[in-house]
Amino acid sequence: MSDVIRSTARMVGGLKASRGLVSASSRLVPEEVPIAFSYAGSTHAVMMATPDDLEDFAVGFSLAEGIIERAEDVVAIDVVEAGEGIDVQVTLREMTAEALIARRRRMAGPVGCGLCGIESIEQASRAVKPVAAEGFSLTARDVAQAMAQLTARQDLNRQTRAVHAAGFYSLRQGLVAIREDVGRHNALDKLVGAVVIGGWDSAEGAVVVTSRLSVEMVQKTAALGAPVLIAISAPTALAIRTAAQAGITLIGIARDEDFEIFTRPDRVAEGVPLHV
Amino acid sequence: MSDVIRSTARMVGGLKASRGLVSASSRLVPEEVPIAFSYAGSTHAVMMATPDDLEDFAVGFSLAEGIIERAEDVVAIDVVEAGEGIDVQVTLREMTAEALIARRRRMAGPVGCGLCGIESIEQASRAVKPVAAEGFSLTARDVAQAMAQLTARQDLNRQTRAVHAAGFYSLRQGLVAIREDVGRHNALDKLVGAVVIGGWDSAEGAVVVTSRLSVEMVQKTAALGAPVLIAISAPTALAIRTAAQAGITLIGIARDEDFEIFTRPDRVAEGVPLHV
Repeated sequence: MSDVIRSTARMVGGLKASRGLVSASSRLVPEEVPIAFSYAGSTHAVMMATPDDLEDFAVGFSLAEGIIERAEDVVAIDVVEAGEGIDVQVTLREMTAEALIARRRRMAGPVGCGLCGIESIEQASRAVKPVAAEGFSLTARDVAQAMAQLTARQDLNRQTRAVHAAGFYSLRQGLVAIREDVGRHNALDKLVGAVVIGGWDSAEGAVVVTSRLSVEMVQKTAALGAPVLIAISAPTALAIRTAAQAGITLIGIARDEDFEIFTRPDRVAEGVPLHV
Repeated sequence: MSDVIRSTARMVGGLKASRGLVSASSRLVPEEVPIAFSYAGSTHAVMMATPDDLEDFAVGFSLAEGIIERAEDVVAIDVVEAGEGIDVQVTLREMTAEALIARRRRMAGPVGCGLCGIESIEQASRAVKPVAAEGFSLTARDVAQAMAQLTARQDLNRQTRAVHAAGFYSLRQGLVAIREDVGRHNALDKLVGAVVIGGWDSAEGAVVVTSRLSVEMVQKTAALGAPVLIAISAPTALAIRTAAQAGITLIGIARDEDFEIFTRPDRVAEGVPLHV
């Protein structure tokens, strides 16, 4: 692992207009850095992200993209300063690397990156693996606690008011991991990496996020294998369809013990008096 | 232009937990559809987006990506249903298409999509063109009006509470265009397309958005050539540096006539009594 150290926030000066008066002001704003993920000498993607927890990010991104199946498929992670950004060079287990190179060859058309529209769309809306977590259930109180503990531990957001967070709430131990990022997808990738590296049982907890629920948030939760996804805000129609397909309980608009359940409500029955 | 019609929102049923009681509920949620942009028979990117205003989206995306320099570089736009998504097939003027194909050949390495990390990072943090809008200025009242008019015209967000908006505020005519999308980058791409197709002078107004200010929001505003970018929320450090480089006035945390100015405050001097 490299010793590249980057700050996650920076104090900037400006002017503040308030009630018609202008005064000098200062504010801590989050850093945003291009972070490339390279495998076998070639970059897979560049994300604009908060430059911390890069090993978690690399493992979570690789899992969510289907490049690896488990943390052990990653042999080494080298974090290298590259121009204005960071190149995260991931060394894969030999068989995993060969599979990726073969996939790249299949995908590369005669003009380079060119997939045709249909292939690219199929890739974006690929089927998710159903989560294997039957028997798991949580209460309205768990939902409230997961959200409260997430809020309490958003350190970077408390300073900047401009970053998202994703956490993993274990029924037995509460919020065991939280990761923050200027991008909500990145925060969830980092969390997925932290959960699998930390060895937490993903089938025994819920993912909780501060953002809206687009389809990619559901795909990443399915890649982790967590049975419940809780968000402060609302889902898209495709996120709901994908959660139904994956067998994930999708909970949105979560404020204290009030929330809405969009899929698999059976996992929330216990502890909630049913007066439909 | 095609007659593909997609709805932008859908009513879904669920359960609502409130004060320990559970009841049936329903909610209008935004649709989210994979939308591919194809040029010269090959897909450039797939965005998860709200399936409306696709011609605006195609022109704005092409401008922001540097594929075209003006709306006239696009000869035709065909909107084609493709599997679970939409393939937006953009036909470019001959010289523009040749330049894109040459660029693709340069970028394509031996393993397909592989740029090395440094090349990819340079691409992500590419220099922006300074905006040419000297002499333009606006008042605190304009900032408040731009934000109020944007809020008033967020039709899809009023229904779903889950989509972003981008608008263009002309000093003379007020908010002349607004576009909405589940993705904040998409909303701004659609707006950029709407402004150039509509023939509005981008140097004579401000872009106003409902989201945070990441660097890409500044890059897209620079591609449009607008001198001011106003947001309801805070910027990242890189967004501030990029706005300074482009000569864009960056305004954040805009609530009524209160806001913060991060770059080029000289454009806001007029109408604001200065009591620093």
